[in-house]
Amino acid sequence: MLKLAITGKGGVGKTTLSSLLARLYAAEGVTVLAIDANPDANLGTALGISANELRRVTPIAEMKELIEERTGGKPGTTGGFFKINPKVDDIPERFSVKKDGIRLLVIGSVKKGGSGCMCPESALLRNLLNHLILRKSEVVIMDMDAGIEHLGRATAASVNAFIVVVEPGQRSIETAKAVKRLANDIGIKKCYVVGNKIASEADRQFITENLPDFELLGYICFNPKIAEADRKGISPYDNDPRVVSEVKAIKERLEAISR
Amino acid sequence: MLKLAITGKGGVGKTTLSSLLARLYAAEGVTVLAIDANPDANLGTALGISANELRRVTPIAEMKELIEERTGGKPGTTGGFFKINPKVDDIPERFSVKKDGIRLLVIGSVKKGGSGCMCPESALLRNLLNHLILRKSEVVIMDMDAGIEHLGRATAASVNAFIVVVEPGQRSIETAKAVKRLANDIGIKKCYVVGNKIASEADRQFITENLPDFELLGYICFNPKIAEADRKGISPYDNDPRVVSEVKAIKERLEAISR
Repeated sequence: MLKLAITGKGGVGKTTLSSLLARLYAAEGVTVLAIDANPDANLGTALGISANELRRVTPIAEMKELIEERTGGKPGTTGGFFKINPKVDDIPERFSVKKDGIRLLVIGSVKKGGSGCMCPESALLRNLLNHLILRKSEVVIMDMDAGIEHLGRATAASVNAFIVVVEPGQRSIETAKAVKRLANDIGIKKCYVVGNKIASEADRQFITENLPDFELLGYICFNPKIAEADRKGISPYDNDPRVVSEVKAIKERLEAISR
Repeated sequence: MLKLAITGKGGVGKTTLSSLLARLYAAEGVTVLAIDANPDANLGTALGISANELRRVTPIAEMKELIEERTGGKPGTTGGFFKINPKVDDIPERFSVKKDGIRLLVIGSVKKGGSGCMCPESALLRNLLNHLILRKSEVVIMDMDAGIEHLGRATAASVNAFIVVVEPGQRSIETAKAVKRLANDIGIKKCYVVGNKIASEADRQFITENLPDFELLGYICFNPKIAEADRKGISPYDNDPRVVSEVKAIKERLEAISR
């Protein structure tokens, strides 16, 4: 069983990579649990799940009674105590939607301004992920929230590897270094990198020269078809064969070094 | 006194816009308090403050004793109680660095994986911003963290306006709509939009058609010089006159409608 957390600076392409990896595994017949752990993302749309089907997903954050029952943390408050090891085993079956071999679970969004932090939801998700170690063979792909606060919360502490997406810019490089350092603190030793929005050989060099301590899984070229898929609200998997073959090579490299 | 929070999806250009607005106000002789509220950003570098000078800034998150003293929340824990109205009046003077008319205050990063959430730091910042209402004329520009969790925390509840940066893509548009709705919940009525990474007239139309309820402040063109500034670790203000004049027009529009 492979559990991956896709992470990196905001806007680098985490959801794009998460969706393409999930679709590629599902196309091989592997059961995929895709977890949208970003309160401000839409992994479902990027996976090609229609708005109608997505309405059937109950985001964890909307299950106020469940969160309160399991964590003791009342949504709508800030700064209260809550259990950090809540019961989670029934959650994937109850709160996900399944389509074409991909089961999608969504942490959910902030429903009301001033309604508090995402700490109880994050605790639920961390424990869910930890519990999943014991379950049957499948691939878990978790699309993390932008930046590094999730590492303070150790939401993804039980994954096998982090994949950090970077673009050719200093700030996403700095985020990657911070992710690796903080991941090490929570016991994650494998931190791979994928370079996205590559427009030239100089861009490739910029990434390899600035991240010498990372295992590189591969590159995704700068590709207007990816932004186009976002504008159309469809999956990049269904919009451009080039990015699919690039991510296929990344997946093969990941499997080769994970063995 | 104008207090602005710059917000939006990860990677849309919040730090770029924040730094350019701050530099433009400072160039006019206005005192600017620039607040880097993103644990995963580097507003200082984008402002053109050198790495050496930045080492003199003490991030709020690193003042463990201060946070514990003021909020009762012990950094390094998750799920404890903390005061939500801590004392803050001495913080800007004690913990900022000043350069060329810009005072920079930094919330700071996650220092250790598994060390907890940013809730106590966010509470300190929220109260700091609220307190600043009473102070002398200056402009406050706060570069928020990516996405919408800060709206659950109401970190920026006392600003005059949110500026939401969007790019021509469905996901940043969805974030802008969520920001406006959540901002309304916390009493912020003014939510302006700036379109970034504009490459065509179709891109401009995409934004105006998808955000009809927003007051548009203007556009920033797709511009490789901005990414170049990031790669070089310098301010976009010092790297490209075109983006400076674009943001100058945005600032003038903001002033005209704020009157």
